[in-house]
Amino acid sequence: MLRQVLDEGRAAADAALELLLPPAAQHPTSIHQAMRHSVFAGGKRLRPILCMEAGRMTTAQPCASLPAGIERLGAALEMLHTYSLIHDDLPALDNDDLRRGRPTCHKVFGEAVAILAGDALQTQAYEVLAQIQCPSDARVSIIREIAHATGTIDGMIGGQVVDLEAEHKRPDLATLEYIHRSKTAALLTASVVSGGIYSGASGEAIENLRVYGQSIGLAFQIVDDVLDVTQSSEQLGKTAGKDTAAEKATYPALFGVEESLRRADALIVKACAQLDSFGERADTLKELARFLVARKS
Amino acid sequence: MLRQVLDEGRAAADAALELLLPPAAQHPTSIHQAMRHSVFAGGKRLRPILCMEAGRMTTAQPCASLPAGIERLGAALEMLHTYSLIHDDLPALDNDDLRRGRPTCHKVFGEAVAILAGDALQTQAYEVLAQIQCPSDARVSIIREIAHATGTIDGMIGGQVVDLEAEHKRPDLATLEYIHRSKTAALLTASVVSGGIYSGASGEAIENLRVYGQSIGLAFQIVDDVLDVTQSSEQLGKTAGKDTAAEKATYPALFGVEESLRRADALIVKACAQLDSFGERADTLKELARFLVARKS
Repeated sequence: MLRQVLDEGRAAADAALELLLPPAAQHPTSIHQAMRHSVFAGGKRLRPILCMEAGRMTTAQPCASLPAGIERLGAALEMLHTYSLIHDDLPALDNDDLRRGRPTCHKVFGEAVAILAGDALQTQAYEVLAQIQCPSDARVSIIREIAHATGTIDGMIGGQVVDLEAEHKRPDLATLEYIHRSKTAALLTASVVSGGIYSGASGEAIENLRVYGQSIGLAFQIVDDVLDVTQSSEQLGKTAGKDTAAEKATYPALFGVEESLRRADALIVKACAQLDSFGERADTLKELARFLVARKS
Repeated sequence: MLRQVLDEGRAAADAALELLLPPAAQHPTSIHQAMRHSVFAGGKRLRPILCMEAGRMTTAQPCASLPAGIERLGAALEMLHTYSLIHDDLPALDNDDLRRGRPTCHKVFGEAVAILAGDALQTQAYEVLAQIQCPSDARVSIIREIAHATGTIDGMIGGQVVDLEAEHKRPDLATLEYIHRSKTAALLTASVVSGGIYSGASGEAIENLRVYGQSIGLAFQIVDDVLDVTQSSEQLGKTAGKDTAAEKATYPALFGVEESLRRADALIVKACAQLDSFGERADTLKELARFLVARKS
Protein backbone atom coordinates (compact mmCIF):
# COMPACT_ATOMS: atom_id res chain seq x y z
CA MET A 1 0.00 0.00 0.00
CA LEU A 2 2.63 2.56 1.05
CA ARG A 3 5.00 1.19 -1.59
CA GLN A 4 2.36 1.95 -4.21
CA VAL A 5 1.86 5.51 -2.89
CA LEU A 6 5.61 6.10 -2.99
CA ASP A 7 6.06 4.62 -6.47
CA GLU A 8 3.05 6.30 -8.05
CA GLY A 9 3.80 9.60 -6.34
CA ARG A 10 7.39 9.56 -7.53
CA ALA A 11 6.29 8.71 -11.08
CA ALA A 12 3.74 11.55 -11.09
CA ALA A 13 6.29 14.03 -9.75
CA ASP A 14 8.92 12.88 -12.25
CA ALA A 15 6.50 13.22 -15.16
CA ALA A 16 5.57 16.75 -14.07
CA LEU A 17 9.24 17.69 -13.65
CA GLU A 18 10.01 16.32 -17.10
CA LEU A 19 7.25 18.50 -18.54
CA LEU A 20 7.97 21.66 -16.55
CA LEU A 21 11.77 21.84 -16.82
CA PRO A 22 13.18 23.25 -20.07
CA PRO A 23 14.45 20.43 -22.34
CA ALA A 24 18.18 19.63 -22.10
CA ALA A 25 18.56 20.62 -25.77
CA GLN A 26 17.02 24.08 -25.19
CA HIS A 27 19.45 26.99 -25.62
CA PRO A 28 21.48 27.73 -23.49
CA THR A 29 21.98 24.00 -23.04
CA SER A 30 24.54 23.93 -20.21
CA ILE A 31 22.17 25.43 -17.64
CA HIS A 32 19.29 23.15 -18.60
CA GLN A 33 21.53 20.09 -18.48
CA ALA A 34 22.77 21.18 -15.05
CA MET A 35 19.23 21.69 -13.72
CA ARG A 36 18.18 18.27 -15.01
CA HIS A 37 21.34 16.57 -13.74
CA SER A 38 20.45 17.49 -10.18
CA VAL A 39 16.67 17.15 -10.41
CA PHE A 40 16.86 13.71 -12.02
CA ALA A 41 19.48 12.28 -9.70
CA GLY A 42 17.08 9.78 -8.15
CA GLY A 43 15.41 11.56 -5.24
CA LYS A 44 12.53 9.99 -3.34
CA ARG A 45 10.27 13.00 -4.16
CA LEU A 46 9.11 13.15 -0.54
CA ARG A 47 7.96 16.77 -0.76
CA PRO A 48 5.77 16.23 -3.85
CA ILE A 49 4.37 13.01 -2.35
CA LEU A 50 3.54 14.69 0.98
CA CYS A 51 1.94 17.58 -0.90
CA MET A 52 -0.13 15.33 -3.14
CA GLU A 53 -1.28 13.12 -0.27
CA ALA A 54 -2.25 16.16 1.81
CA GLY A 55 -4.26 17.31 -1.21
CA ARG A 56 -5.89 13.90 -1.55
CA MET A 57 -6.75 13.76 2.16
CA THR A 58 -8.44 17.17 2.18
CA THR A 59 -10.12 17.24 -1.25
CA ALA A 60 -13.91 17.58 -1.31
CA GLN A 61 -14.10 14.81 -3.93
CA PRO A 62 -15.77 11.78 -2.29
CA CYS A 63 -13.49 9.25 -4.02
CA ALA A 64 -10.35 10.84 -2.51
CA SER A 65 -8.53 10.94 -5.82
CA LEU A 66 -5.65 13.37 -6.32
CA PRO A 67 -6.81 16.93 -7.10
CA ALA A 68 -6.23 17.55 -10.83
CA GLY A 69 -2.83 19.07 -11.62
CA ILE A 70 -1.48 18.94 -8.04
CA GLU A 71 1.63 17.12 -9.30
CA ARG A 72 2.75 20.47 -10.78
CA LEU A 73 2.70 22.02 -7.32
CA GLY A 74 4.67 18.98 -6.17
CA ALA A 75 7.19 19.49 -8.97
CA ALA A 76 7.71 23.13 -7.94
CA LEU A 77 8.44 21.98 -4.36
CA GLU A 78 11.01 19.50 -5.67
CA MET A 79 12.66 22.24 -7.76
CA LEU A 80 13.04 24.36 -4.63
CA HIS A 81 14.45 21.42 -2.68
CA THR A 82 16.93 20.66 -5.46
CA TYR A 83 18.03 24.30 -5.73
CA SER A 84 18.87 24.21 -2.01
CA LEU A 85 20.87 20.99 -2.44
CA ILE A 86 22.90 22.40 -5.36
CA HIS A 87 23.84 25.51 -3.39
CA ASP A 88 24.47 23.54 -0.15
CA ASP A 89 26.94 21.34 -1.99
CA LEU A 90 29.05 24.23 -3.36
CA PRO A 91 32.68 24.51 -2.26
CA ALA A 92 31.92 27.71 -0.32
CA LEU A 93 29.24 25.88 1.68
CA ASP A 94 29.34 22.13 2.45
CA ASN A 95 31.83 21.35 -0.34
CA ASP A 96 30.33 17.99 -1.18
CA ASP A 97 31.35 15.95 -4.22
CA LEU A 98 28.64 13.32 -3.98
CA ARG A 99 24.85 13.61 -3.81
CA ARG A 100 22.36 10.79 -4.26
CA GLY A 101 25.30 8.65 -5.40
CA ARG A 102 26.27 10.95 -8.28
CA PRO A 103 28.81 13.75 -8.67
CA THR A 104 27.32 17.06 -7.48
CA CYS A 105 26.28 19.76 -9.94
CA HIS A 106 29.42 21.90 -9.60
CA LYS A 107 31.67 18.84 -10.03
CA VAL A 108 30.12 18.22 -13.45
CA PHE A 109 29.24 21.70 -14.70
CA GLY A 110 31.59 23.97 -12.75
CA GLU A 111 30.76 26.39 -9.96
CA ALA A 112 29.41 29.23 -12.11
CA VAL A 113 26.82 27.09 -13.88
CA ALA A 114 25.93 25.30 -10.63
CA ILE A 115 25.22 28.60 -8.87
CA LEU A 116 23.05 29.71 -11.79
CA ALA A 117 21.33 26.31 -12.04
CA GLY A 118 20.29 26.61 -8.38
CA ASP A 119 19.06 30.14 -9.01
CA ALA A 120 17.16 28.98 -12.08
CA LEU A 121 15.39 26.14 -10.26
CA GLN A 122 14.12 28.63 -7.72
CA THR A 123 12.93 30.95 -10.49
CA GLN A 124 11.31 28.12 -12.44
CA ALA A 125 9.46 26.98 -9.31
CA TYR A 126 7.72 30.36 -9.02
CA GLU A 127 6.95 30.49 -12.74
CA VAL A 128 5.24 27.10 -12.32
CA LEU A 129 3.44 28.12 -9.10
CA ALA A 130 2.02 31.22 -10.80
CA GLN A 131 0.27 28.90 -13.27
CA ILE A 132 -0.99 25.92 -11.23
CA GLN A 133 -4.63 24.87 -11.68
CA CYS A 134 -6.21 26.31 -8.53
CA PRO A 135 -7.92 29.72 -8.11
CA SER A 136 -5.61 32.76 -8.10
CA ASP A 137 -6.38 33.42 -4.43
CA ALA A 138 -5.10 29.93 -3.55
CA ARG A 139 -2.08 30.36 -5.83
CA VAL A 140 -0.92 33.55 -4.09
CA SER A 141 -1.49 31.91 -0.67
CA ILE A 142 0.64 28.97 -1.74
CA ILE A 143 3.40 31.21 -3.12
CA ARG A 144 3.45 33.22 0.08
CA GLU A 145 3.55 30.06 2.22
CA ILE A 146 6.37 28.49 0.22
CA ALA A 147 8.44 31.66 -0.09
CA HIS A 148 8.25 32.19 3.66
CA ALA A 149 9.19 28.56 4.34
CA THR A 150 12.31 28.88 2.19
CA GLY A 151 13.30 32.33 3.48
CA THR A 152 15.60 33.73 6.15
CA ILE A 153 13.46 34.34 9.23
CA ASP A 154 12.47 30.81 10.17
CA GLY A 155 12.82 29.15 6.77
CA MET A 156 15.30 27.11 4.79
CA ILE A 157 17.93 29.80 4.16
CA GLY A 158 17.84 30.92 7.80
CA GLY A 159 18.46 27.33 8.90
CA GLN A 160 21.31 27.00 6.44
CA VAL A 161 23.00 30.17 7.71
CA VAL A 162 22.77 29.15 11.37
CA ASP A 163 23.95 25.64 10.47
CA LEU A 164 27.06 27.06 8.77
CA GLU A 165 27.78 29.35 11.69
CA ALA A 166 27.33 26.52 14.22
CA GLU A 167 30.16 24.42 12.75
CA HIS A 168 33.03 23.73 15.10
CA LYS A 169 31.05 24.99 18.10
CA ARG A 170 29.31 22.91 20.73
CA PRO A 171 25.66 23.48 19.80
CA ASP A 172 22.94 24.09 22.36
CA LEU A 173 19.49 22.56 21.96
CA ALA A 174 17.81 25.86 21.05
CA THR A 175 20.22 26.40 18.14
CA LEU A 176 19.87 22.82 17.01
CA GLU A 177 16.08 23.02 17.02
CA TYR A 178 16.14 26.32 15.12
CA ILE A 179 18.35 24.73 12.45
CA HIS A 180 16.23 21.62 12.05
CA ARG A 181 12.93 23.47 12.18
CA SER A 182 14.06 26.02 9.61
CA LYS A 183 16.37 24.11 7.32
CA THR A 184 14.23 21.03 6.76
CA ALA A 185 10.91 21.09 8.60
CA ALA A 186 9.74 24.43 7.16
CA LEU A 187 9.66 23.21 3.53
CA LEU A 188 8.21 19.83 4.50
CA THR A 189 5.50 21.72 6.38
CA ALA A 190 4.88 24.02 3.42
CA SER A 191 4.56 20.91 1.25
CA VAL A 192 1.59 19.52 3.17
CA VAL A 193 0.07 22.94 3.88
CA SER A 194 0.23 23.96 0.20
CA GLY A 195 -1.35 20.64 -0.78
CA GLY A 196 -4.20 21.47 1.59
CA ILE A 197 -4.59 25.01 0.23
CA TYR A 198 -4.61 23.61 -3.32
CA SER A 199 -7.50 21.33 -2.34
CA GLY A 200 -9.46 24.15 -0.76
CA ALA A 201 -9.11 22.70 2.77
CA SER A 202 -10.60 24.56 5.74
CA GLY A 203 -8.47 26.76 7.96
CA GLU A 204 -8.70 24.15 10.71
CA ALA A 205 -7.53 21.37 8.38
CA ILE A 206 -4.62 23.57 7.26
CA GLU A 207 -3.54 24.09 10.87
CA ASN A 208 -3.69 20.32 11.52
CA LEU A 209 -1.51 19.78 8.47
CA ARG A 210 0.88 22.46 9.73
CA VAL A 211 1.44 20.71 13.09
CA TYR A 212 1.75 17.36 11.30
CA GLY A 213 4.36 18.87 8.93
CA GLN A 214 6.38 20.49 11.70
CA SER A 215 6.47 17.25 13.68
CA ILE A 216 7.45 14.96 10.81
CA GLY A 217 9.92 17.59 9.58
CA LEU A 218 11.81 17.64 12.85
CA ALA A 219 11.67 13.83 13.08
CA PHE A 220 12.94 13.57 9.50
CA GLN A 221 15.98 15.73 10.26
CA ILE A 222 16.77 13.83 13.48
CA VAL A 223 16.77 10.58 11.50
CA ASP A 224 18.92 12.24 8.83
CA ASP A 225 21.48 13.13 11.50
CA VAL A 226 21.38 9.60 12.91
CA LEU A 227 21.88 8.04 9.47
CA ASP A 228 24.89 10.30 8.94
CA VAL A 229 26.66 8.60 11.86
CA THR A 230 25.32 5.03 11.46
CA GLN A 231 25.32 4.45 7.69
CA SER A 232 28.07 4.32 5.07
CA SER A 233 28.40 6.73 2.15
CA GLU A 234 27.40 3.89 -0.13
CA GLN A 235 24.20 3.24 1.78
CA LEU A 236 23.33 6.94 1.87
CA GLY A 237 24.33 7.88 -1.67
CA LYS A 238 26.11 10.89 -0.18
CA THR A 239 29.19 11.42 1.96
CA ALA A 240 28.54 9.93 5.42
CA GLY A 241 30.11 11.18 8.62
CA LYS A 242 30.28 14.76 7.32
CA ASP A 243 28.43 16.20 10.30
CA THR A 244 30.91 14.71 12.74
CA ALA A 245 33.86 15.85 10.63
CA ALA A 246 32.52 19.40 10.54
CA GLU A 247 31.55 19.21 14.25
CA LYS A 248 28.04 20.14 13.19
CA ALA A 249 25.08 20.68 15.46
CA THR A 250 23.19 17.35 15.40
CA TYR A 251 20.85 15.39 17.63
CA PRO A 252 23.20 12.39 18.02
CA ALA A 253 26.00 14.76 19.05
CA LEU A 254 23.78 16.18 21.78
CA PHE A 255 21.71 13.15 22.90
CA GLY A 256 23.29 10.04 21.38
CA VAL A 257 21.69 7.77 18.79
CA GLU A 258 19.21 5.95 21.00
CA GLU A 259 17.67 8.99 22.67
CA SER A 260 17.55 10.79 19.28
CA LEU A 261 15.52 7.96 17.76
CA ARG A 262 13.22 7.92 20.79
CA ARG A 263 12.52 11.64 20.26
CA ALA A 264 11.89 11.07 16.55
CA ASP A 265 9.37 8.34 17.39
CA ALA A 266 7.57 10.62 19.84
CA LEU A 267 7.26 13.31 17.16
CA ILE A 268 5.72 10.82 14.74
CA VAL A 269 3.14 9.81 17.35
CA LYS A 270 2.29 13.50 17.78
CA ALA A 271 2.07 14.04 14.01
CA CYS A 272 -0.32 11.11 13.54
CA ALA A 273 -2.55 12.15 16.44
CA GLN A 274 -2.96 15.52 14.74
CA LEU A 275 -4.70 13.84 11.81
CA ASP A 276 -7.18 11.70 13.79
CA SER A 277 -10.08 13.98 12.88
CA PHE A 278 -9.66 13.01 9.20
CA GLY A 279 -10.50 9.36 9.97
CA GLU A 280 -9.21 6.72 7.59
CA ARG A 281 -8.48 9.35 4.95
CA ALA A 282 -5.40 10.15 7.04
CA ASP A 283 -4.02 6.60 6.80
CA THR A 284 -1.57 7.35 4.01
CA LEU A 285 -0.08 10.46 5.65
CA LYS A 286 0.24 8.47 8.90
CA GLU A 287 2.03 5.66 7.08
CA LEU A 288 4.28 8.20 5.39
CA ALA A 289 5.18 9.68 8.78
CA ARG A 290 6.20 6.25 10.11
CA PHE A 291 8.13 5.55 6.91
CA LEU A 292 10.21 8.71 7.37
CA VAL A 293 11.68 7.50 10.67
CA ALA A 294 12.11 3.87 9.53
CA ARG A 295 14.08 4.69 6.36
CA LYS A 296 17.72 3.65 5.96
CA SER A 297 18.86 6.30 3.43
CA MET B 1 10.98 67.51 -13.70
CA LEU B 2 12.88 64.29 -14.46
CA ARG B 3 15.18 64.97 -11.50
CA GLN B 4 12.10 65.08 -9.25
CA VAL B 5 10.77 61.78 -10.70
CA LEU B 6 14.13 60.12 -10.12
CA ASP B 7 14.53 61.47 -6.59
CA GLU B 8 10.98 60.78 -5.46
CA GLY B 9 10.97 57.37 -7.12
CA ARG B 10 14.21 56.38 -5.47
CA ALA B 11 12.94 57.60 -2.09
CA ALA B 12 9.70 55.62 -2.47
CA ALA B 13 11.57 52.48 -3.51
CA ASP B 14 14.06 52.87 -0.67
CA ALA B 15 11.29 53.31 1.89
CA ALA B 16 9.54 50.17 0.62
CA LEU B 17 12.79 48.19 0.68
CA GLU B 18 13.46 49.36 4.23
CA LEU B 19 10.01 48.11 5.24
CA LEU B 20 10.06 44.83 3.29
CA LEU B 21 13.57 43.55 4.08
CA PRO B 22 14.07 41.87 7.45
CA PRO B 23 15.80 44.23 9.92
CA ALA B 24 19.58 43.92 10.19
CA ALA B 25 19.18 42.94 13.85
CA GLN B 26 16.79 40.06 13.01
CA HIS B 27 18.19 36.58 13.71
CA PRO B 28 20.19 35.25 11.84
CA THR B 29 21.80 38.66 11.54
CA SER B 30 24.62 37.93 9.07
CA ILE B 31 22.29 37.13 6.18
CA HIS B 32 20.09 40.17 6.80
CA GLN B 33 23.10 42.44 7.03
CA ALA B 34 24.44 40.97 3.78
CA MET B 35 21.10 41.48 1.99
CA ARG B 36 20.94 45.08 3.18
CA HIS B 37 24.59 45.77 2.37
CA SER B 38 23.94 45.07 -1.28
CA VAL B 39 20.43 46.50 -1.54
CA PHE B 40 21.38 49.77 0.13
CA ALA B 41 24.61 50.34 -1.78
CA GLY B 42 23.25 53.41 -3.57
CA GLY B 43 21.56 52.12 -6.73
CA LYS B 44 19.50 54.42 -8.94
CA ARG B 45 16.39 52.20 -8.48
CA LEU B 46 15.73 52.34 -12.23
CA ARG B 47 13.56 49.21 -12.26
CA PRO B 48 11.24 50.42 -9.48
CA ILE B 49 11.04 53.87 -11.07
CA LEU B 50 10.22 52.44 -14.51
CA CYS B 51 7.60 50.18 -12.92
CA MET B 52 5.99 52.98 -10.92
CA GLU B 53 5.91 55.38 -13.87
CA ALA B 54 4.41 52.71 -16.13
CA GLY B 55 1.77 52.24 -13.43
CA ARG B 56 1.15 55.99 -13.25
CA MET B 57 0.88 56.28 -17.03
CA THR B 58 -1.71 53.52 -17.34
CA THR B 59 -3.77 54.01 -14.18
CA ALA B 60 -7.45 54.77 -14.63
CA GLN B 61 -7.19 57.52 -12.02
CA PRO B 62 -7.66 60.87 -13.81
CA CYS B 63 -5.02 62.66 -11.73
CA ALA B 64 -2.32 60.21 -12.84
CA SER B 65 -1.05 59.63 -9.32
CA LEU B 66 0.91 56.49 -8.48
CA PRO B 67 -1.32 53.44 -7.93
CA ALA B 68 -1.45 52.76 -4.16
CA GLY B 69 1.21 50.34 -2.97
CA ILE B 70 3.01 50.00 -6.33
CA GLU B 71 6.31 50.87 -4.64
CA ARG B 72 6.22 47.37 -3.09
CA LEU B 73 6.18 45.84 -6.55
CA GLY B 74 9.09 48.14 -7.37
CA ALA B 75 10.95 46.98 -4.27
CA ALA B 76 10.54 43.33 -5.30
CA LEU B 77 12.04 44.14 -8.71
CA GLU B 78 15.01 45.80 -7.03
CA MET B 79 15.50 42.74 -4.78
CA LEU B 80 15.68 40.54 -7.89
CA HIS B 81 18.11 42.91 -9.58
CA THR B 82 20.32 42.98 -6.47
CA TYR B 83 20.28 39.16 -6.15
CA SER B 84 21.60 38.94 -9.71
CA LEU B 85 24.36 41.46 -8.96
CA ILE B 86 25.49 39.59 -5.83
CA HIS B 87 25.75 36.29 -7.72
CA ASP B 88 27.34 37.91 -10.82
CA ASP B 89 30.07 39.37 -8.62
CA LEU B 90 31.04 36.01 -7.03
CA PRO B 91 34.57 34.66 -7.65
CA ALA B 92 33.17 31.78 -9.74
CA LEU B 93 31.42 34.27 -12.04
CA ASP B 94 32.70 37.82 -12.71
CA ASN B 95 34.92 37.89 -9.60
CA ASP B 96 34.34 41.56 -8.89
CA ASP B 97 35.52 43.29 -5.71
CA LEU B 98 33.73 46.58 -6.26
CA ARG B 99 30.08 47.38 -6.92
CA ARG B 100 28.45 50.80 -6.75
CA GLY B 101 31.71 52.04 -5.20
CA ARG B 102 31.58 49.60 -2.26
CA PRO B 103 33.14 46.20 -1.61
CA THR B 104 30.93 43.45 -3.04
CA CYS B 105 28.83 41.21 -0.80
CA HIS B 106 31.23 38.26 -0.75
CA LYS B 107 34.20 40.54 0.03
CA VAL B 108 32.47 41.66 3.22
CA PHE B 109 30.45 38.59 4.29
CA GLY B 110 32.28 35.70 2.61
CA GLU B 111 31.16 33.58 -0.31
CA ALA B 112 28.78 31.29 1.60
CA VAL B 113 26.71 34.11 3.05
CA ALA B 114 26.82 36.03 -0.27
CA ILE B 115 25.41 33.04 -2.16
CA LEU B 116 22.66 32.66 0.43
CA ALA B 117 21.98 36.43 0.51
CA GLY B 118 21.39 36.37 -3.26
CA ASP B 119 19.12 33.35 -2.86
CA ALA B 120 17.24 35.07 -0.06
CA LEU B 121 16.64 38.27 -2.03
CA GLN B 122 15.05 36.21 -4.78
CA THR B 123 12.88 34.38 -2.22
CA GLN B 124 11.90 37.59 -0.46
CA ALA B 125 10.90 39.16 -3.78
CA TYR B 126 8.31 36.43 -4.35
CA GLU B 127 7.05 36.60 -0.78
CA VAL B 128 6.46 40.33 -1.36
CA LEU B 129 4.89 39.82 -4.82
CA ALA B 130 2.42 37.29 -3.38
CA GLN B 131 1.11 40.07 -1.12
CA ILE B 132 1.04 43.25 -3.25
CA GLN B 133 -2.16 45.31 -3.27
CA CYS B 134 -3.67 44.33 -6.62
CA PRO B 135 -6.22 41.56 -7.34
CA SER B 136 -4.91 37.97 -7.10
CA ASP B 137 -5.33 37.50 -10.87
CA ALA B 138 -3.00 40.45 -11.49
CA ARG B 139 -0.57 39.20 -8.84
CA VAL B 140 -0.15 35.79 -10.47
CA SER B 141 0.24 37.45 -13.91
CA ILE B 142 2.97 39.68 -12.49
CA ILE B 143 4.75 36.76 -10.80
CA ARG B 144 4.65 34.75 -14.03
CA GLU B 145 5.94 37.69 -16.06
CA ILE B 146 8.79 38.44 -13.67
CA ALA B 147 9.81 34.80 -13.16
CA HIS B 148 9.96 34.27 -16.91
CA ALA B 149 12.00 37.47 -17.38
CA THR B 150 14.57 36.30 -14.83
CA GLY B 151 14.69 32.68 -16.06
CA THR B 152 16.82 30.63 -18.40
CA ILE B 153 15.03 30.60 -21.77
CA ASP B 154 15.23 34.26 -22.76
CA GLY B 155 15.58 35.80 -19.32
CA MET B 156 18.25 37.07 -16.98
CA ILE B 157 19.89 33.76 -16.07
CA GLY B 158 19.98 32.62 -19.70
CA GLY B 159 21.74 35.86 -20.65
CA GLN B 160 24.20 35.41 -17.82
CA VAL B 161 25.07 31.86 -18.91
CA VAL B 162 25.63 32.82 -22.54
CA ASP B 163 27.64 35.85 -21.44
CA LEU B 164 29.95 33.63 -19.36
CA GLU B 165 30.36 31.16 -22.22
CA ALA B 166 31.08 33.94 -24.73
CA GLU B 167 34.18 35.14 -22.86
CA HIS B 168 37.42 34.91 -24.80
CA LYS B 169 35.56 34.24 -28.06
CA ARG B 170 34.87 36.69 -30.86
CA PRO B 171 31.13 37.24 -30.41
CA ASP B 172 28.71 37.40 -33.33
CA LEU B 173 25.82 39.86 -33.34
CA ALA B 174 23.16 37.22 -32.72
CA THR B 175 24.91 36.04 -29.55
CA LEU B 176 25.46 39.59 -28.40
CA GLU B 177 21.80 40.53 -28.91
CA TYR B 178 20.67 37.39 -27.08
CA ILE B 179 22.86 38.30 -24.11
CA HIS B 180 21.70 41.90 -23.95
CA ARG B 181 18.05 41.11 -24.54
CA SER B 182 18.05 38.38 -21.91
CA LYS B 183 20.49 39.58 -19.29
CA THR B 184 19.28 43.16 -18.95
CA ALA B 185 16.36 44.02 -21.21
CA ALA B 186 14.10 41.21 -20.00
CA LEU B 187 13.89 42.46 -16.39
CA LEU B 188 13.62 46.10 -17.48
CA THR B 189 10.75 45.04 -19.75
CA ALA B 190 9.11 43.07 -16.93
CA SER B 191 9.42 46.18 -14.76
CA VAL B 192 7.26 48.35 -17.04
CA VAL B 193 4.93 45.49 -18.01
CA SER B 194 4.29 44.55 -14.38
CA GLY B 195 3.62 48.21 -13.55
CA GLY B 196 0.99 48.19 -16.29
CA ILE B 197 -0.58 44.94 -15.07
CA TYR B 198 -0.67 46.36 -11.52
CA SER B 199 -2.63 49.36 -12.84
CA GLY B 200 -5.08 47.18 -14.71
CA ALA B 201 -3.85 48.41 -18.13
CA SER B 202 -5.41 46.99 -21.32
CA GLY B 203 -3.74 44.23 -23.29
CA GLU B 204 -2.81 46.75 -25.99
CA ALA B 205 -1.23 49.12 -23.47
CA ILE B 206 0.75 46.19 -22.00
CA GLU B 207 2.11 45.33 -25.45
CA ASN B 208 3.13 48.95 -26.04
CA LEU B 209 4.96 48.89 -22.71
CA ARG B 210 6.61 45.62 -23.70
CA VAL B 211 8.11 47.05 -26.90
CA TYR B 212 9.13 50.21 -25.03
CA GLY B 213 10.84 48.06 -22.37
CA GLN B 214 12.65 45.86 -24.86
CA SER B 215 13.96 48.90 -26.74
CA ILE B 216 15.16 50.86 -23.74
CA GLY B 217 16.56 47.66 -22.25
CA LEU B 218 18.78 46.98 -25.23
CA ALA B 219 19.79 50.66 -25.42
CA PHE B 220 20.59 50.61 -21.69
CA GLN B 221 22.94 47.65 -22.07
CA ILE B 222 24.67 49.17 -25.12
CA VAL B 223 25.34 52.32 -23.09
CA ASP B 224 26.56 50.14 -20.20
CA ASP B 225 29.07 48.49 -22.51
CA VAL B 226 30.20 51.86 -23.86
CA LEU B 227 30.66 53.28 -20.35
CA ASP B 228 32.80 50.26 -19.45
CA VAL B 229 35.37 51.31 -22.09
CA THR B 230 35.07 55.12 -21.79
CA GLN B 231 34.73 55.75 -18.03
CA SER B 232 37.03 55.11 -15.08
CA SER B 233 36.25 52.75 -12.19
CA GLU B 234 35.81 55.81 -9.99
CA GLN B 235 33.22 57.32 -12.30
CA LEU B 236 31.33 54.03 -12.60
CA GLY B 237 31.51 52.93 -8.98
CA LYS B 238 32.54 49.51 -10.27
CA THR B 239 35.60 48.06 -11.98
CA ALA B 240 35.90 49.61 -15.48
CA GLY B 241 37.45 47.85 -18.47
CA LYS B 242 36.37 44.43 -17.22
CA ASP B 243 34.59 43.55 -20.45
CA THR B 244 37.70 44.21 -22.52
CA ALA B 245 39.89 42.29 -20.07
CA ALA B 246 37.57 39.28 -20.24
CA GLU B 247 37.18 39.69 -24.03
CA LYS B 248 33.47 39.84 -23.46
CA ALA B 249 30.83 40.15 -26.13
CA THR B 250 30.00 43.90 -26.24
CA TYR B 251 28.64 46.42 -28.74
CA PRO B 252 31.78 48.60 -28.73
CA ALA B 253 33.89 45.47 -29.42
CA LEU B 254 31.75 44.74 -32.48
CA PHE B 255 30.82 48.21 -33.79
CA GLY B 256 33.02 50.74 -32.00
CA VAL B 257 31.80 53.43 -29.57
CA GLU B 258 30.26 55.86 -32.08
CA GLU B 259 28.16 53.36 -33.99
CA SER B 260 27.09 51.74 -30.70
CA LEU B 261 25.76 55.05 -29.39
CA ARG B 262 23.98 55.71 -32.71
CA ARG B 263 22.20 52.38 -32.35
CA ALA B 264 21.26 53.16 -28.75
CA ASP B 265 19.78 56.49 -29.84
CA ALA B 266 17.73 54.81 -32.59
CA LEU B 267 16.31 52.38 -30.02
CA ILE B 268 15.25 55.25 -27.77
CA VAL B 269 13.43 56.92 -30.69
CA LYS B 270 11.62 53.62 -31.30
CA ALA B 271 10.76 53.25 -27.61
CA CYS B 272 9.28 56.73 -27.40
CA ALA B 273 7.25 56.34 -30.60
CA GLN B 274 5.65 53.27 -29.03
CA LEU B 275 4.10 55.44 -26.33
CA ASP B 276 2.64 58.17 -28.57
CA SER B 277 -0.89 56.85 -28.10
CA PHE B 278 -0.71 57.72 -24.38
CA GLY B 279 -0.35 61.44 -25.18
CA GLU B 280 1.31 63.66 -22.59
CA ARG B 281 0.90 60.96 -19.93
CA ALA B 282 3.87 59.28 -21.62
CA ASP B 283 6.16 62.27 -21.13
CA THR B 284 7.91 60.89 -18.04
CA LEU B 285 8.65 57.44 -19.53
CA LYS B 286 9.96 59.18 -22.66
CA GLU B 287 12.22 61.40 -20.58
CA LEU B 288 13.39 58.35 -18.65
CA ALA B 289 14.27 56.61 -21.92
CA ARG B 290 16.40 59.54 -23.04
CA PHE B 291 18.00 59.73 -19.60
CA LEU B 292 19.12 56.10 -19.83
CA VAL B 293 21.33 56.76 -22.88
CA ALA B 294 22.62 60.14 -21.63
CA ARG B 295 23.83 58.83 -18.24
CA LYS B 296 27.52 58.75 -17.33
CA SER B 297 27.50 55.95 -14.72
